[in-house]
Amino acid sequence: LRFPSISTDPAHAQDVRRTALWLRAYLEGIGLQAEIWESPGHPAVFASHSQAGPGRPTVLLYHHYDVQPVDPLEQWTFPPFEPTVRDGQMYARGAQDNKGQCFYTLAALKAFLALSERVGCNVKVFIEGEEESGGSGTHVLLQEKREALRADHLLVIDLDLPGEGTPGITLGLRGIAALHVECANAAADLHSGSHGGIALNPNRALVQLLAKLWDAEGKVAVPGFYDAVRPWSAQEEAQLDLRFDPAAYSAAFGVHAFAPEPGYSLRASNWLRPTMEINGLAGGYAGEGFKTVIPARAVAKLSCRLVPDQDPRAIGHLVEVFLKERAPDGVDLRVQLHHGGPPFRSRVDSAIAQMANAAYAEVFGKPCVHVLAGGSVPIVPALAAASGGETVLMGFGLPQDNIHAPDEHFGLDRFEMGFLTVARILSRLSCVEN
Amino acid sequence: LRFPSISTDPAHAQDVRRTALWLRAYLEGIGLQAEIWESPGHPAVFASHSQAGPGRPTVLLYHHYDVQPVDPLEQWTFPPFEPTVRDGQMYARGAQDNKGQCFYTLAALKAFLALSERVGCNVKVFIEGEEESGGSGTHVLLQEKREALRADHLLVIDLDLPGEGTPGITLGLRGIAALHVECANAAADLHSGSHGGIALNPNRALVQLLAKLWDAEGKVAVPGFYDAVRPWSAQEEAQLDLRFDPAAYSAAFGVHAFAPEPGYSLRASNWLRPTMEINGLAGGYAGEGFKTVIPARAVAKLSCRLVPDQDPRAIGHLVEVFLKERAPDGVDLRVQLHHGGPPFRSRVDSAIAQMANAAYAEVFGKPCVHVLAGGSVPIVPALAAASGGETVLMGFGLPQDNIHAPDEHFGLDRFEMGFLTVARILSRLSCVEN
Repeated sequence: LRFPSISTDPAHAQDVRRTALWLRAYLEGIGLQAEIWESPGHPAVFASHSQAGPGRPTVLLYHHYDVQPVDPLEQWTFPPFEPTVRDGQMYARGAQDNKGQCFYTLAALKAFLALSERVGCNVKVFIEGEEESGGSGTHVLLQEKREALRADHLLVIDLDLPGEGTPGITLGLRGIAALHVECANAAADLHSGSHGGIALNPNRALVQLLAKLWDAEGKVAVPGFYDAVRPWSAQEEAQLDLRFDPAAYSAAFGVHAFAPEPGYSLRASNWLRPTMEINGLAGGYAGEGFKTVIPARAVAKLSCRLVPDQDPRAIGHLVEVFLKERAPDGVDLRVQLHHGGPPFRSRVDSAIAQMANAAYAEVFGKPCVHVLAGGSVPIVPALAAASGGETVLMGFGLPQDNIHAPDEHFGLDRFEMGFLTVARILSRLSCVEN
Repeated sequence: LRFPSISTDPAHAQDVRRTALWLRAYLEGIGLQAEIWESPGHPAVFASHSQAGPGRPTVLLYHHYDVQPVDPLEQWTFPPFEPTVRDGQMYARGAQDNKGQCFYTLAALKAFLALSERVGCNVKVFIEGEEESGGSGTHVLLQEKREALRADHLLVIDLDLPGEGTPGITLGLRGIAALHVECANAAADLHSGSHGGIALNPNRALVQLLAKLWDAEGKVAVPGFYDAVRPWSAQEEAQLDLRFDPAAYSAAFGVHAFAPEPGYSLRASNWLRPTMEINGLAGGYAGEGFKTVIPARAVAKLSCRLVPDQDPRAIGHLVEVFLKERAPDGVDLRVQLHHGGPPFRSRVDSAIAQMANAAYAEVFGKPCVHVLAGGSVPIVPALAAASGGETVLMGFGLPQDNIHAPDEHFGLDRFEMGFLTVARILSRLSCVEN
C-alpha cells in the first residue's frame, strides 16, 4: 500500500514496476516460482506452484496491483500512501481495490502452502498492472502467454459482497461500449449576442441530439439496440437475488429520481438489461460567473452497459449511425468508439462455483446469494478465454469502501473473511478426488 | 494600454485604480475639471468642460477603461500589455475594447478644445471601470450622480462599424437574461455500471429538459416568451440595412449550420428577434480519456437575448417556470437569474443622430447605414435614463479585432477615422444655433 502504483500516470511508471518487483519477491518467499512478464504497457507478475503435478486441478488467481489516482488529495483524511488503521478500517489508496483483496488471497495462499500436509492442487497467480488505466499491454500478454495461463478454474477476486455480512458470488458482468461524441460548428468560440440567431449553437445541437437517444417511454431509441439481448430464463432468474430496496438506496446515495428501463425492475435494469449513460458533457463556459459564448464545439462521453449477447463494436456502430443520421445539416459531428468490452456470465453450477459457495457458507454461517454486477471488468472475458477455466467472480468489497475516491478503506474483518474463504477454497481444491 | 486594468481579477484592483488616476490627469491636462468617483466596486472617472454655459448643448461621452483577462496568454503573438504596432495595427489588450476607442475620443476632444475659436458646447466624460466584469458599482454611481450626468446628448462609443469602410450607426442593442441551471440527483458521483439502470443520470435529465426549450419547428417553446415582443414597423425596417451574406459569414467564421428563428431571415433573427442560447454545459467528465461516472450534478448556463419590450426578469421567470414544470420527479433542479439587462433603442432622427450621420458621411465620403447590434451593452439603458439625453451608439470596431481574445488589435486607420468623426460631431454641436 506504500507504493504509489498509479498506472494511468506516466510519472509513476517506476513506482508501478517497483510494486511488481515487490510482489515477485513476496511470491517467491512463500514458495512459488515467480517472474515478471514485460508487456508493451506495464509489467505483470506471474507465479506458479506446480508440485501437485499434471493429474491434479489447477487454479488461476487474478488480481491487479495498480491503483487509481488520488485527486482530490485535499479530501483525504490520511495520506493515501501511508496506510493507517482507524476503527478497524485500513485507509489507503488500494486498501480494497485491489491490493487489499490481493493480499488476503496471497496470505491465504501462504498459509495453505505452509500448513497443508499435502498440496493437492496447482496454483497460478496472475497480477496485472493496467486494470485501472485500460492499457492494452495485458491483452497482449493474454495472447502470448496463453499456455502459461491455462487452468481448470479461475478466481477473479476484485468484486463486492452483495451486502454487509451477506456471502455471495457474482455470476456475471455487463459489458461496455464507450463513445466520444463531438459536435462542432465554428472555427472559434463566437459571441452569443453578435452571432445568436445566426449560427447554430453546438450545445443546442448536442442536447437535442442526445435527448433523442431515449424514446418518450424511456427506452433507448437506437434501432437494433436491444436486438441481441438474450432473454434470461426462469432458471437464471431463480438463481439471482433480485431484491432491491429503493428507500435504503436513496438514503445511502442521496438519489431521489430513478430511471429503470420501462417494464423492468430497478435491479433487473441494473443487472439484466443494457443501459445508455451520458458520462460527460462539456461545451462553452459553465464555471463561476458567466461567459456569453456560442462555443466552437461541444463534447459528450456516452457509455452503454451491455448484456449477453450484445457486442461492443456492433452497439457502438448503431449509436454512431443513429446520431449521424439525426445531426442537423452542416454540423460537424464526430463519433468514436473509445473502448469496449463484452459482457460475461459464469456458471452457477461449476465445480469451482460449488466449492466457493461452500467456503463462503462455512465462513459466514449462512448460504451464498447470487448476484450480477452492473459494472464491467473488461479483462475478464479475455482472461477466462485464455485460461480456459471455469470462472468465479468474487470479493469482499462494499459500496462504502470509497474505491477510486478519497479515503478508500477496507475493513480488517472483511480481510479476515476473505483470507478464510480463499483458504477454504484452496483446501477444497486440494482434496478433490481424482 | 500598458495598465493591466483587468477588472474581474481582484489581484489587478490597484492597476485598475492607477488607470483611473492616469485618465483623471490626462483629462485635467486637456482642460477639463476631472475627478474620481468612488463606488462600491471599481472607481469611475468623471470630467466636464462647462465654459459654453447653461444655454448651450451638453454632450456626455461614455467609455470604459477596464479590460478583459488575457488568457490564454500563450496564444498572444505580442505581450498583451506592451503595445506593439505591426502592419498598421496596434496590438494590445484593450487596443480596441475600449481603450483604443476611448483614446481617439479624448484626442478629438483635446483637439476640439485646443483649436476651437469658441467652445460652443458643454462636454462631460464618464469612463467607468467595471464594464467587463459586470460590477454593480457603476449602477450605484448612475443613481448617486444623476445630476452630474445630465446631458442633452449621449455618445456611447464602444461599438463596431457595419463593415470595413462602411460608416454606420447602431440604433439598438438586445437585452439579456442570463440563467444558471443546475440539475442534481445524488450526494456524490456514482459509478455508471453499478448504478446505471437505477439512478437517473443528471446529464440525461438536463439534456432532455434543455431540448424542450425549442419546439419541433425551432421556435423557443417557453409559453409567453415572445408575447412582449413589439412588432417592428415598416418604417423601422426601412431604416435598417438587413442584408446578410451567409457565404461570406461561413467563410469568416467557419459556421456551416444556421439557426434563424423560423419565419425570419438570419439578420432579423440576430437583430430583431429574441434568442435562447446554451452558453455552457458541464456534467461528469468530458476530458481526455474516459470516466464511467453518473455525475452528482450537471450544469447549464442559458442566456436569452431580448428585444423591445421584453423584460429580463419576466423572461427569466418564464424560463424558470418552464424548466421546473418539466423536470423529472425527484430531480433537484435549481434555476437562478444570474444577470439581466433590458433591450435598448435609440432614435434615428434625433439631433445628435443627425450630426453623427453627417460627420460619418463627411469622413467616409458616403452616407451612413443603420444597424442594430445582436449583443448587449447592459449599462446603456440605465445610463441613457440617468443622463436624460438622446443616445447615439457608435464606434469603429470590426469583428476581426479579436476583442476578449488573444492578439486583440485595432487599425490605426480606424483610430484616425474615429478621431475625425468625433471631432466633427463636437464641432457641429458647438455650432448649433440657439
